[in-house]
Amino acid sequence: MIKATIVVMLKPGVLDPQGSAVKGSLHSLGFEEVTEVRIGKRMEVWLNTDNRAEAEARVAAMCDKLLANPVIENYTFELEEGA
Amino acid sequence: MIKATIVVMLKPGVLDPQGSAVKGSLHSLGFEEVTEVRIGKRMEVWLNTDNRAEAEARVAAMCDKLLANPVIENYTFELEEGA
Repeated sequence: MIKATIVVMLKPGVLDPQGSAVKGSLHSLGFEEVTEVRIGKRMEVWLNTDNRAEAEARVAAMCDKLLANPVIENYTFELEEGA
Repeated sequence: MIKATIVVMLKPGVLDPQGSAVKGSLHSLGFEEVTEVRIGKRMEVWLNTDNRAEAEARVAAMCDKLLANPVIENYTFELEEGA
């Protein structure tokens, strides 16, 4: 079993309305020192394989096809064997 | 300036409908080897302070008050100075 931990974040420069909303809420709660908030996804995906190279290619394909929007998002991932 | 990277994930055992939906989509795209998917949030928060201890306490308070639901979610965070 291999566990992939995938992080998907908006590309720099892409407007983050969710982040802006959270910043506004933090300010209204008194956290004035917050200057910026960027929000993304963290996904843990377990794969029923022990072939690291294959898992590497398959996880990249999952990100390209479904988990990340290549136009506005960047993704990175780490693999953990024996998870 | 200090940058906090916060990860909020559902507690183990808490049902993850979003994760299940993504697993189903991955299967329909042919990624049959996926056995489980857990989805959470990754937030980058910039704070206008250089006081690490203060930032530590404030980020924990932000998580407790707004960014994480203590009933069903766990959070962890890292601080990066001079970000």
